Amino acid sequence: MPFINRNGVKVYYESHGAGDPAIVFLHPWSTNRYIWAGQLPVFAQNHRCILVDHRGHGLSDKPESGYALGEMAADVVAILDDAGIDKAVLVGNSIGGMTAMQVSLDAPERVIGNLILSSGTNIGADTPPEVAEAMQKDWQGVFSALLDGAVSPKSKVERPEIAAFMEGCFRTPSNFTEGVFFASAADPDGVFNWNISDRLKDITQPTLIIAGEDDNATTPAHNQFLADHIPNAEIKMYKDVGHFCQLEKPSDFNADLKAFLRKVA
Amino acid sequence: MPFINRNGVKVYYESHGAGDPAIVFLHPWSTNRYIWAGQLPVFAQNHRCILVDHRGHGLSDKPESGYALGEMAADVVAILDDAGIDKAVLVGNSIGGMTAMQVSLDAPERVIGNLILSSGTNIGADTPPEVAEAMQKDWQGVFSALLDGAVSPKSKVERPEIAAFMEGCFRTPSNFTEGVFFASAADPDGVFNWNISDRLKDITQPTLIIAGEDDNATTPAHNQFLADHIPNAEIKMYKDVGHFCQLEKPSDFNADLKAFLRKVA
Repeated sequence: MPFINRNGVKVYYESHGAGDPAIVFLHPWSTNRYIWAGQLPVFAQNHRCILVDHRGHGLSDKPESGYALGEMAADVVAILDDAGIDKAVLVGNSIGGMTAMQVSLDAPERVIGNLILSSGTNIGADTPPEVAEAMQKDWQGVFSALLDGAVSPKSKVERPEIAAFMEGCFRTPSNFTEGVFFASAADPDGVFNWNISDRLKDITQPTLIIAGEDDNATTPAHNQFLADHIPNAEIKMYKDVGHFCQLEKPSDFNADLKAFLRKVA
Repeated sequence: MPFINRNGVKVYYESHGAGDPAIVFLHPWSTNRYIWAGQLPVFAQNHRCILVDHRGHGLSDKPESGYALGEMAADVVAILDDAGIDKAVLVGNSIGGMTAMQVSLDAPERVIGNLILSSGTNIGADTPPEVAEAMQKDWQGVFSALLDGAVSPKSKVERPEIAAFMEGCFRTPSNFTEGVFFASAADPDGVFNWNISDRLKDITQPTLIIAGEDDNATTPAHNQFLADHIPNAEIKMYKDVGHFCQLEKPSDFNADLKAFLRKVA
């Protein structure tokens, strides 16, 4: 505590609050646990809340390889073990949602339910070749451009701090590095190539998908695909929201999570 | 690392990013370091950023006594020592601003400058007796009422998540406790009784006071008093902002901090 160590890779987590069900918050690629600042005190009043820095991010180690979703999911299971948590609700945004789905497949007995916020599977299949090529030359430039389509036009005007947060996260080498970017992007089971399309049917836990109509990073179609193939899933599609509902409409997101907790408790 | 231990009291801090000047972020009473989530990645790109959980808050120990501002300031100095930081810019909100001022007096050689956000000294002198009495009976109820006057009417409508964040912080016993509340409130040099009115003249570092016109917790008058008595101080008073400019107008606050860093670098 508060690091787990799996095969020499240390992964950081924090535990706040008390109460069942426990909630594990899993952040998007290139960011860190601080993206959940608006959720932490709201839910820690009544629930044990675990905030994770994924491997490659924040205070966690940044190994040269090992960014398959299976590794990231195993980190979460190790954290549940270390924290003495039998079962939890997983809340994951983007790669955090992928991690939650992978945990649901690999250790289904540990997952009460999933709130998947703006995620998908096999998302690299939809990456235009020119974007993939540009990434090789200027990954931070491509990330900046992606961000432009990942926050809704409305949020861009009303909450410019959201893009500033994201930009800062991937431009801070102590938080996220070029090495992590390329290792994760190239991994056959990493953020872009991970494909569980034909296994979504095996995710049996209650699952709420929250997505944004204006999300060009994991599109409405990506999210709808999850909802269509996970048996026990519902989807809620937000207007004027991009990839980050917890920041773009935090009060609505928190209300949705509260309702989901009541449903699965 | 990442705890310092002073006389048996462990105080948690995190270090992110690199670059001079280092910045130490000091949060308000009853909250924790997550209140700076919107600043961390913005400034960690170019500066070493230290986030502290004050004693009695967050992941830090919560002793039964020891909440004099002098103790909290000594914690910050111990953190600077532990982190190997010679001098830093201090950014403090409310009791965090008081802590910054106390560090500036006790260890002036460690402070490059202060950004004091919505703070004051001797603020308990303006607490009506009926409020003090109500606190004894129902401190959480009084905190809720105070919050109502600590966020601007505009923020209340547009950003209801701010009050939700604050409410959650003081209602989460792992974050802040009744014991901390009463020990800190009663301490002769604690949050309400700490009075450096006649020592403000000895704070010689460049100091920027940022305050909100709608702040009923540390009022415009409290903040103006600081600006009038700290020799090298400027004040910026925000319209439609209460006690939490970093949450209510994060982009403006960040621009102000950037400009201040350029000025003192």
